[in-house]
Amino acid sequence: MHRVRVRVVEDALDANNTIAQANRADFDRAGVTVVNLMSAPGAGKTTLLERVLGPGLPGIRAGVLEGDVAGSLDADRLAHLHVPVVQLNTDAGFGGECHLDANMVRSALPALDLDALDLLIVENVGNLVCPAEFRIGEDARIMVSSVAEGADKPLKYPLMFRACELVVINKIDLAPYVDFEMDRFLHYVDQVHPGVRTLQVSARTGEGVDEVRDWLAELPDRVGAAA
Amino acid sequence: MHRVRVRVVEDALDANNTIAQANRADFDRAGVTVVNLMSAPGAGKTTLLERVLGPGLPGIRAGVLEGDVAGSLDADRLAHLHVPVVQLNTDAGFGGECHLDANMVRSALPALDLDALDLLIVENVGNLVCPAEFRIGEDARIMVSSVAEGADKPLKYPLMFRACELVVINKIDLAPYVDFEMDRFLHYVDQVHPGVRTLQVSARTGEGVDEVRDWLAELPDRVGAAA
Repeated sequence: MHRVRVRVVEDALDANNTIAQANRADFDRAGVTVVNLMSAPGAGKTTLLERVLGPGLPGIRAGVLEGDVAGSLDADRLAHLHVPVVQLNTDAGFGGECHLDANMVRSALPALDLDALDLLIVENVGNLVCPAEFRIGEDARIMVSSVAEGADKPLKYPLMFRACELVVINKIDLAPYVDFEMDRFLHYVDQVHPGVRTLQVSARTGEGVDEVRDWLAELPDRVGAAA
Repeated sequence: MHRVRVRVVEDALDANNTIAQANRADFDRAGVTVVNLMSAPGAGKTTLLERVLGPGLPGIRAGVLEGDVAGSLDADRLAHLHVPVVQLNTDAGFGGECHLDANMVRSALPALDLDALDLLIVENVGNLVCPAEFRIGEDARIMVSSVAEGADKPLKYPLMFRACELVVINKIDLAPYVDFEMDRFLHYVDQVHPGVRTLQVSARTGEGVDEVRDWLAELPDRVGAAA
């Protein structure tokens, strides 16, 4: 019984990787750098995007693909930023898929003018487990961890922290009120993903956001995907 | 392609329900009331349990089944409370299952002396999507939502808020620092699950915890499962 379940899942991941490569080929053809943005629910991904994309990234035409189980609250929030935003809902699947997969992203591509973009940020469904397992054809992955979630998260959700190129530690303005021990958190991050880049941010106050903007602005050159 | 995936998932849910009924029969035989405790990562489930179970529930012998992708941090925290705690890790599955299912809970039952318990609290993996889909044989479901996650969560994860009998709104001590609008949150909760009981709590300061204790203490009588 257990063997059968594992086989089904491996097949699903295999199919996912095939479609992720097709997405990747489309992104390369259009010269679009793609970021998969992941976090637990309510860690502040959308507020961070508002801060990062609101003023515009110099010389970079950015777009957003918004993933949610239901609704378009986040897409509505981003709509005023004058960047193309496409909402993708996952609730057609069994009561709501807990992650975006390559095929869901592929289904949204016709709604995006890839040739008019340099950078596409895909905001995943809020979840610290499954999004890390499904590649969507991205160049880089950012995971956002809020200090309100506690310092133990890297040890409890190691794959998520291992699967990303940047850990944004958000809501640092709340640190005094939640007994968050930054040193312990950074130690745990380094334990599960040695050397990964971390940035300390408050999307609410704007502190540290410029460093995220710089990281994103340099990403196309870093991955060599710019057309 | 999409049809096939949906069928696989329905089969999985069907098998899950069969095993959940077997768990339910075992719990009934032993006169154990079972609570499925769910939330996003870092919403404060374990701190709430420390507060609720630390002083003991009068006349109720409680035990905890701790679900995590990896590690035993939460079980270690609860071990000093003098309640039986069993850790269940889900990382044997594909890079970490994002929820507990009935079979995982069943696999842990031999480690629990059900006849010595009146109340079993199952702390699920931190996730606002899939745990709501998998019954484990429980009598009641509590979901914990932290004000730090924002007021929009009921609209974004409606199934989770619909699938529970009690919504614990935690970290209310943080409300002034995160612009959390309680009225808006309660309105959204009522929209997706009209009439569901809500309790406002700070597991950190202890505020409102007595009401959670009362709710749990009365649960065995309410569900009529006490032997």
